[in-house]
Amino acid sequence: MEIKKIDGGIENIENIKFNGIKEGKNGLGVIVCKGNVAGVFTTNKIKAAPVKLTMENIKDGKIEGLIVNSGNANAYTGQKGLKNARKMILLLANKLGVDDKKIAVASTGVIGVQLDMSWIEKKFEEVFENLGNDRDKALAFVKSIMTTDTFAKESTVKVGDVIVAGVAKGAGMISPNMATMLSFIFTNADFESSELTEMLKKAVNLSFNVTIVDGDTSTNDMVLLIATCEKKVDKKAFQEALNEVCVDLAKKIAKDGEGATKLVEVVVEGAKDDVDAFKAAKAVVSSLLVKTAIFGNDPNWGRIIAALGYSGAEVDENITLKLKSKDKGLTLVENGKALGNEEEARKLLEESDEIKIFIDLHKGKGKGFAIGCDLTYEYVRINAEYTT
Amino acid sequence: MEIKKIDGGIENIENIKFNGIKEGKNGLGVIVCKGNVAGVFTTNKIKAAPVKLTMENIKDGKIEGLIVNSGNANAYTGQKGLKNARKMILLLANKLGVDDKKIAVASTGVIGVQLDMSWIEKKFEEVFENLGNDRDKALAFVKSIMTTDTFAKESTVKVGDVIVAGVAKGAGMISPNMATMLSFIFTNADFESSELTEMLKKAVNLSFNVTIVDGDTSTNDMVLLIATCEKKVDKKAFQEALNEVCVDLAKKIAKDGEGATKLVEVVVEGAKDDVDAFKAAKAVVSSLLVKTAIFGNDPNWGRIIAALGYSGAEVDENITLKLKSKDKGLTLVENGKALGNEEEARKLLEESDEIKIFIDLHKGKGKGFAIGCDLTYEYVRINAEYTT
Repeated sequence: MEIKKIDGGIENIENIKFNGIKEGKNGLGVIVCKGNVAGVFTTNKIKAAPVKLTMENIKDGKIEGLIVNSGNANAYTGQKGLKNARKMILLLANKLGVDDKKIAVASTGVIGVQLDMSWIEKKFEEVFENLGNDRDKALAFVKSIMTTDTFAKESTVKVGDVIVAGVAKGAGMISPNMATMLSFIFTNADFESSELTEMLKKAVNLSFNVTIVDGDTSTNDMVLLIATCEKKVDKKAFQEALNEVCVDLAKKIAKDGEGATKLVEVVVEGAKDDVDAFKAAKAVVSSLLVKTAIFGNDPNWGRIIAALGYSGAEVDENITLKLKSKDKGLTLVENGKALGNEEEARKLLEESDEIKIFIDLHKGKGKGFAIGCDLTYEYVRINAEYTT
Repeated sequence: MEIKKIDGGIENIENIKFNGIKEGKNGLGVIVCKGNVAGVFTTNKIKAAPVKLTMENIKDGKIEGLIVNSGNANAYTGQKGLKNARKMILLLANKLGVDDKKIAVASTGVIGVQLDMSWIEKKFEEVFENLGNDRDKALAFVKSIMTTDTFAKESTVKVGDVIVAGVAKGAGMISPNMATMLSFIFTNADFESSELTEMLKKAVNLSFNVTIVDGDTSTNDMVLLIATCEKKVDKKAFQEALNEVCVDLAKKIAKDGEGATKLVEVVVEGAKDDVDAFKAAKAVVSSLLVKTAIFGNDPNWGRIIAALGYSGAEVDENITLKLKSKDKGLTLVENGKALGNEEEARKLLEESDEIKIFIDLHKGKGKGFAIGCDLTYEYVRINAEYTT
């Protein structure tokens, strides 16, 4: 079945309502969404209060609504933090007249500071009263969950009658197995929660879990997939649509990595196996020396070779290395032989804000890829000044 | 036995001769040093030609001399690279009239480019003719091996009649299990090569192997310990002296990490075991978010908590966290409770260029530490422009 990208965001899902507000660093977003739910959460051992509660609340696979704040992670905030996250849940549960176990809560922002509950309580009224299902409200929600993000991240596809519409916030602290990223994906498809969980895990492993901005894994990450169960579609087609939305959102997160000027994709082929291929791709996309070289349009491919050498993957000097921009390709190293075309490579890097690095290790049939971005002055500025 | 820091560098070792030259990015250094030798080498699977040859040549534990170039790593340079590294060895072996298997060779610089042998051959004559054993020649040697280093790194101690004098070059690409760092340590002590190897491994594990600038591990790292075997000292005292020299050089490398403005030491106590303690210390010292926060004097200690959470070490929220400058200490979090003294913490960070982070995980008796530095605009500038 054909998967088509379509315009707009979560307003494409008819039977949900949403709204959000952003005031300075603080934001509050609300979504009313009755349906089945699946979630993937941070692997950080120190989990934020909202993560703990949402993990618990979605266990029965049912959801009625979602409340999210930005500007404060409500992480490492002890019993008071848990109490405040519960208060956020109750604000929405009480308005909807539903069991508080049917509400998900999420937070993103600074760690170790208690929430400003009076601001949240006040703004909740305003946001809730103006819930709707149009483009403006969809944008208001996406913007309400942004922190250092510089653009709203949405991705929507259609497969048959089924729509999959996702939003995300990301920027820094993105690392495999999630990071300070939140993503909420909605669909009108009809699937059981167990099916949603299985498909979400697969999609996350191909997208958010191979996206690396700075290697830090946050206390607050959460991806929820919520289905309003109105339309039928076969599982294979849905999986592909879901993968496409997740990969598209992951690329947008990497492209908007804090201070990033270039999206970087690393594709490894010919590895001993898929595990080795991902190790190699991850080492290259994570290397600060590779990331700064790409920022500087510096064709210093020796840094890629060095990263492969310490990646843990089985490698020897017989490596093939290619660069690709949006419209051009260039082989830099062929079977271990440098082609000496650094000037062409520099031009290719200068001309494109999307760079693909292709690597063939000539060891076997393993394939893997990773998504990342360059490392810039802006990354340092943003993160040196975050709480000031 | 008392270990005393003493002035100067390798000129304190009587029976060795040295000299070096630096012209722009290229440097060449030579040391004539008859004695026993031990070495520790990069774990990168792609090893530079000089690393391969030196690993082979020191196997019998005997050395007559050392030749080093900077500006070009002679790594990923195939058969021609190996031939050139052999040529470097022969230059010195022929002058000394010794077996070429008694010469060590090392390189540091850009990867994937062939050496300019005509420059090396020409300069070798000049350097060799002016070998000596005084302060000026010692500095000439240290400077000849520098790349992006901003100051010469030397450390010398005396224990009884025995002197241990080390030099190092470092800066970027420093990671556990070595990195683009070269260190050559000389002593007049009398030990067998097997004893030197055992003691060098211990010292490296406590120093260079816990030093992290950017997590990249180079193709070229090498630490050599060379003993002229003239004076006796007990092994325990020598080990302590050697540890002190290695830790001192490692701190100098971190302090001179590319673009760094602050030396950062992370001490973890109360971990489940020592392995966990090092995992925790390594995660904190490697975190880009922690590194940028320290650069910005930003007391955003939540990032330290997040790093502990994803470190893989056993942790829960019961953490104690202290900052220490050269002369002040401040507890930020005590048994999981934030003390709310961020303003004081900011001042402490502002006032010192050496920051210690003390962490107690309250899980057991494991101890570990790691050495690193902050992440700055300069790091990005240096590495975005390296080959231009």
